[in-house]
Formats: sequence, C-alpha cells, structure tokens
Amino acid sequence: MSQVSAYGAVRSDAPLQAVKIERRELGADDVAIDITHCGICHSDLHYVRGEWGEQPSPAVPGHEIVGVVRAVGANVTKHKAGDRVGVGCMVDSCRACEACQEGEEQFCTKQIGTYMGIEKQTGLPTYGGYSKAIIVTQDFVLRIPDGLKSEHAAPLLCAGITTYSPLRHWKVAPGQKVGVVGLGGLGHMAVKLAKAMGAHVVVFTTSPGKVADAKALGADEVVLSKDAAQMKAYTNSFHLIIDAVSAPHDLEAFSGLLRRNGTLCLLGAPPITESHVWPQVFTMLMGRRSVAGSPIGGIRETQEMLDFCAEKGVKPEIEIIAPDGINGAYERLVKGDIRYRFVIDMATL
Amino acid sequence: MSQVSAYGAVRSDAPLQAVKIERRELGADDVAIDITHCGICHSDLHYVRGEWGEQPSPAVPGHEIVGVVRAVGANVTKHKAGDRVGVGCMVDSCRACEACQEGEEQFCTKQIGTYMGIEKQTGLPTYGGYSKAIIVTQDFVLRIPDGLKSEHAAPLLCAGITTYSPLRHWKVAPGQKVGVVGLGGLGHMAVKLAKAMGAHVVVFTTSPGKVADAKALGADEVVLSKDAAQMKAYTNSFHLIIDAVSAPHDLEAFSGLLRRNGTLCLLGAPPITESHVWPQVFTMLMGRRSVAGSPIGGIRETQEMLDFCAEKGVKPEIEIIAPDGINGAYERLVKGDIRYRFVIDMATL
Repeated sequence: MSQVSAYGAVRSDAPLQAVKIERRELGADDVAIDITHCGICHSDLHYVRGEWGEQPSPAVPGHEIVGVVRAVGANVTKHKAGDRVGVGCMVDSCRACEACQEGEEQFCTKQIGTYMGIEKQTGLPTYGGYSKAIIVTQDFVLRIPDGLKSEHAAPLLCAGITTYSPLRHWKVAPGQKVGVVGLGGLGHMAVKLAKAMGAHVVVFTTSPGKVADAKALGADEVVLSKDAAQMKAYTNSFHLIIDAVSAPHDLEAFSGLLRRNGTLCLLGAPPITESHVWPQVFTMLMGRRSVAGSPIGGIRETQEMLDFCAEKGVKPEIEIIAPDGINGAYERLVKGDIRYRFVIDMATL
Repeated sequence: MSQVSAYGAVRSDAPLQAVKIERRELGADDVAIDITHCGICHSDLHYVRGEWGEQPSPAVPGHEIVGVVRAVGANVTKHKAGDRVGVGCMVDSCRACEACQEGEEQFCTKQIGTYMGIEKQTGLPTYGGYSKAIIVTQDFVLRIPDGLKSEHAAPLLCAGITTYSPLRHWKVAPGQKVGVVGLGGLGHMAVKLAKAMGAHVVVFTTSPGKVADAKALGADEVVLSKDAAQMKAYTNSFHLIIDAVSAPHDLEAFSGLLRRNGTLCLLGAPPITESHVWPQVFTMLMGRRSVAGSPIGGIRETQEMLDFCAEKGVKPEIEIIAPDGINGAYERLVKGDIRYRFVIDMATL
C-alpha cells in the first residue's frame, strides 16, 4: 500500500479537507495513474453528505478522472507509462455476466464504483479521483485521444457518457428532433453531442435567462417549459427527449411532445421519497410512447464517446478550480451557479 | 341510406335494446358486410355507459366484427361477395399522414372509430358491430383465413391485435421470457400469441383460482403477484411484460422483474383521475428499462395477425351468446365472470 494525498470528507456533516488515503500495490493487470484533473459531478456531493447511505471516513469522491500513466503491471498491454488516460464511474465489474460479456458493464450488478465501492483486491473502500493518484485494472482505463485536452476529457467520463449512451442506444441521427430538459452538466453535453450526431436540438428550460446560453451551446431552438402554448406547438414532434432533471417534475408535459414510438429518457432519479408526475397512460398508448431510464455507458462505449468527441471537436464548458476551492464549488453547484462543469486541477494537491 | 337492425343504448343509463340504425349507401370503394359475429370488448361497456363522453342515441358498440360480404362497390378489388371478412376498431383514417403511409393507421390522429367516430361520407355517428350489417371502405376490411372460424376470428380484431402488435414491436422470439399481467380478454390472447411466437410465458395473477386456467392456456409458469417472495425470484428476467390491467396497480413490482433493456408495456389506461404506482426511476436507470404503452395495430399488421393465428392454430376462448344476452353478459364482464371473451351470434338479431 502507498499513501496518497486526497480531498475528502471525514464526516457527512464536515466540509471536504486535505486527507491521506492508501492505494493498493500495483498488480500485474494494473495501471498506476498520476491524476491531473477530476470533474465535479453532483453525485459527489450526494455521496460525501451521506445522502446515499453511510460512507467511509474519509469519503473521497470523483469519477471524472484524467491523468498520466506512471507505471503499469507485468500483464498490461493496453496502456504504457506517459499515456494520457481516464477513469469514469466504474473501476471493475464481474467480467462474467451477460452484461459484462456484451460490453455493457454499467449493468453488471457486481460493478465496482470508482467511489462508494469495495475494492476486490483489498476488501477496502474505493476512493475516487479527488486525489493525486489511483491504481486501476487496465480494462477500466480509457485512452484520451490527442485532440482532447485533459481538463475537457474529465467531464466526458460521467456527464459525457451518460448523455452519449442514450443518444446512441435510441439511434439519434440526422433528420431527427431531440429534446433536452435541464441545462446543467449533463444537459449541456446532451445538446453538444446530439448536435454532433446531426440532430435538430430543442432545449427545454424554466429560465428565460438560459435561452441565449442554450443557443450558444448549439441548440436550434429553446422552449420555456412553463409556457403551455409554446409547449403545445411541439406536440408529436420528438424522436427522443433526454431529461436530465432529477428533481420531481411533470413528465406528462414532455411525453405528449414525443412522436410515434418516441422515448422520454430519464438520466437522474428524484429522492426515493418523492416522485415525478408521470404521464397519463393514454398519452403513452396513443403514440406507443415510452419512458425509459439510462445510467452511464460501458467501457467500450465510453472509449467510442471519447474518440467521437475528439473527432467532432465536442468539449464541455468548464471552470477550473484548485482543490481548496472544492467546498465553494459545492455551494455554487447546489445553487446551479456553474456553466457547466467544475474541473479540479490537481497540481496544488 | 338503408335501415339495419342493431342492439344499442338509447341513453347512457339504459340497458341495451333492439334498435334500428341507418347505414350509408354502398360507395364505389365500399364493402357491404352481413355481420355474423361480434365480440364484446370492455370498451363497448365504457362507451354505452357514457364513461368516455357523450354518445349518440342509440349508441351501438362493437369493434370485433366478422361477417360475409354481400356486395362490393365498383372499385373494390380486395374483397368479393361471399368472402368471410372482418372489421376491427377502425373503419377509416386520413390515408395521408406519416403513420398512415407507413401502415400504422392506429396512430393516425384522424382515424375513424368503428364506433365513437363520425363517418366521412355522411357526417353521421359511426355505429359498431352489434348490428346485422355494416358498410366499410375496402382498405379497412380484413380477410378471414379459411383456418379460422368466424366466432374465433371476431375477438382477434381487438383483443388479438392489441396483444399481437406489442409482441411483434418488441420482437418476441424463441428464447425470450414474456410476462403477462392480468388474465382477461387481452391477457389470455397475450399468453397464446407469445407462446405461438416461441417465448417462455409467465402469467402474473392475484387469484390463486386462475393458476390452473393460466396453465391450461399454455403459460409455462404462473406467479401470484401479491407474493413478494415469488415475485423476487423473477428479478431481472423478463424481456417484455405485457400488462393488460387497466385498474391502478403497482408498476414498480413488475419493472424490477425486467431484464436489461426490458419493457413493461401497458395496454390499458386507468380512469384519468386515478394513477398507477409508477416505478422508481432508479429501477429504470439500472437496467435501461422502459415503460411503454401500445394501442391496437395497423391494418397490415392485423391481417398478418389473422394469418398467423390461422397458421399456428391460435384461437380465443369464447362463450357465444345471442343479442338478447348482451345485458347479462355486461354484468358478468364487470365481475370478471367470463373465460375469456363473449361473442354475439347475430343469427337471431
């Protein structure tokens, strides 16, 4: 084991602080990564505040990790020292189930979270990317293409793949109309990715102040979702609506905008004690419409997404902070005061 | 116009009685059908009781119609006098929209219901199949294959196609596991059709008394849906669950039984003032699971379904009644006391 500097919460009611964590020894299949950047996902905040159950002390979040390979184990063929690499929301899975065999490790019920998991090799809690270094088995390490800066690649490893995966699964293509509900970390990537896939993109927002922003990100149209007349004009028109809002809201308002065979795809879940207003079943029957959920993507698809972003010049809008700015960033995240993703530069950790 | 004997309700609070209705003259594209059989669908009852809005007087329901062609108009090429034919839930559509062009007239927003519609040719209300004869444009008239008796073909025109269409849309095939919730008119057809497509079929019922019935219909397994331990054993196992229960119930209990990419397909809607218990979004995210709705099928698919049933020997379980037994049948329908479809023999009308 080796000691590594990190930033984490020692209690669920404590702000994050500089801490030390242990990383396992480099195994034969492992890649040792010196972390240069880590994106801040809203999940990080839920985790360290104990909103998703009891956490270890310290709780070290971060699953949008980019860095440089320092060393590799004897069996490692996919990566070498000096490569720029990334790690997303998973650091391992069972490798044996049908989902794993088909490259959809995101559905493996034994997947190991980059944080909030238990490491196979040591039986200890996993610690995320708010740290100077991490050891990850080679199959869960992504290549960062040359065309992508490290600070831009980081948010792609959760926000990017979470929006890319449903856009691909529901086969978004030129000539299609895609809606995006909620213009945050995920939503802004959905806009950029759907545009890069050739779709006509319409953003739904409750904030008149976000109209210009949405257009600047590439949206073809912006609809104020509280304006019933505006909404009605889009009835029966969307192939897919990506709904990136976790807070309870009215799904009926969006499901009627789907065309025949259209899908409303939810990316986030409200707290278990709260619920969306679900569509009327009649609305679903009348267009063979679906409501679906989609989590992150698998490793193969995450690599495909990184390569796609490099090729198409897709990158997130980011604000770079130092580790000692994490607590302030969390406060702004809660208020929605970020356009659109914080990325921690680990140089000063 | 010509006068035709029928059975209908003169007021929403009146029992059905023998009435006379007017049928339009035979047009160049029309087929005149002497009706021999008509199935009773639960929708018929909602309609005549005014539960779906104001109805004409008399309100004549019936959209599972089988009969014999008496005469055809000058342009008719698809049918000829003496042919056994059927009419389902639609008697026409706009023919121009994308859904119509793609043979999915069930999604045409201008489709004309076999009852509860307004006839294009006359501007008068449409009257359904509880009658001696009907005039229908040739494109909405189905051929009844030789292998299917008329009394068996009738329920296929609503209950059959409503279950066949989603089984085909979600590509049910050998090796797949299909669930069926609710063993009524629709549910019992879902069991037979899914079996005929090669699936492993599991029926969910709240009634221990239906276990033997479900097996007799061909179900491979039967699960008592109120038994949490039984339900849990099926977690992550279904490709598709066909849910034929309109009354509000717990969808979370079923959505967790879907495997990765599985769909819970609803065929009926609860009253607009009531709602199902919807799945937890987390359950949907974790398997990229969907909840969808599906109505009837298009004309091309309905013909395909009839041909499939004839080829595979699939037929509904029916109880034949005379027109003067309709009111009694409705009372039994409300109590669920029918296994599984009433069919009216029009001989005595």
